[in-house]
Amino acid sequence: MTDSSLQTSIAILGGTGKEGKGLAYRWAKAGYQVHIGSRSADKAIIAANDVREMLKGENSVDGMSNLEAAREAGIVVITVPYAAHRETLESVKDELKGKILVDVTVPLVPPKVSTVQMPVAGSAAQEAREIVGVDVQVCAAFQNISHEHLLDDADVECDVLVTGTSKEARAEIIKLVEAAGLRGWDAGPIENSVVIEGLTSVLIGINKKYGSTHAGIKITGAQRKA
Amino acid sequence: MTDSSLQTSIAILGGTGKEGKGLAYRWAKAGYQVHIGSRSADKAIIAANDVREMLKGENSVDGMSNLEAAREAGIVVITVPYAAHRETLESVKDELKGKILVDVTVPLVPPKVSTVQMPVAGSAAQEAREIVGVDVQVCAAFQNISHEHLLDDADVECDVLVTGTSKEARAEIIKLVEAAGLRGWDAGPIENSVVIEGLTSVLIGINKKYGSTHAGIKITGAQRKA
Repeated sequence: MTDSSLQTSIAILGGTGKEGKGLAYRWAKAGYQVHIGSRSADKAIIAANDVREMLKGENSVDGMSNLEAAREAGIVVITVPYAAHRETLESVKDELKGKILVDVTVPLVPPKVSTVQMPVAGSAAQEAREIVGVDVQVCAAFQNISHEHLLDDADVECDVLVTGTSKEARAEIIKLVEAAGLRGWDAGPIENSVVIEGLTSVLIGINKKYGSTHAGIKITGAQRKA
Repeated sequence: MTDSSLQTSIAILGGTGKEGKGLAYRWAKAGYQVHIGSRSADKAIIAANDVREMLKGENSVDGMSNLEAAREAGIVVITVPYAAHRETLESVKDELKGKILVDVTVPLVPPKVSTVQMPVAGSAAQEAREIVGVDVQVCAAFQNISHEHLLDDADVECDVLVTGTSKEARAEIIKLVEAAGLRGWDAGPIENSVVIEGLTSVLIGINKKYGSTHAGIKITGAQRKA
């Protein structure tokens, strides 16, 4: 890790929550340079310190504002609650051109969080696409995993479906899925994001109905190519 | 099987295709009285004969028109291609009052069958609900299973997600899933049907991308209650 310019750098916007910290932990551990972003740079710095402490300090995680994080990184992951989705994207969109945006958002509408309710665009990821424009590749991923497990090195018994605006962008994000120790699948074009976002509501409902806390999915009957 | 009035009877509209015959085979084997329906009663009779032959004749499967099949059964399953969905439902809706309709339809739009493209109602099952009215419980199920495997007694490595207009209807259909030798999950209200219908496009895309033929899904991290 001597030449950080050769590393892929990843921004995690809204990265002070459980999801964001879990992903930061796994990617930093895998050797990526991770920038945790938040509306408050101070909070981002605290979250980055937490993650660095877990990693025993030998990996590259820092904290800054969402805007700076988006500027510094080649791949920008957004993990904010849906209520802050549009505003966050608007605030960073000028920094996203030519990059890949990974949308982790699930458009849950409380209190009926186990009922699929999508925005007019069709899904949060398609809405993101409308906001950031065609100069940005947009992918959707990581909606269905149990983020608590990311922070404790546990095997996460859930596959990650990756949709996106190009095959190349999806392949790039599947590499990140694997770097985080998970199994990723190309789930097709961005129009398919409704399935992976909506699956979160189905899994919340299954947890409630069957008394589980971490329902997930696995793809069966197919092998990933090397 | 002496008193057929005590058995639950199931109609399978459009039941002359692979899906329909596979389901007819499994349910008849489990002791249900199965009526295969088709636009052509003759074709339905031939399909019923095929299934009876596989079952060595000791089970109850017969063939008739879609309308007669819907009239005879307490649970009506529709397995027609999406292009025939509305017309078939219009033709039988007067026979459905007080019953459960199970929609297996996936609203694929050729040639882009691996892209999710839903009707205005939100999903085929919600469209069915609009057509048949509120006196019918509507469920969606069986969209993601490999129907070829139903006919050869193989273990099907795919769970069945069941959405529907009431908890009671979903529970009833989960019993049918289990009778067919599959694992069923309550996937919530009818609004969630977009996930299970759309998942079929995702799985078609995975088959194409990864060279598989029977990609499916399993729910992980949860146990079904007894």
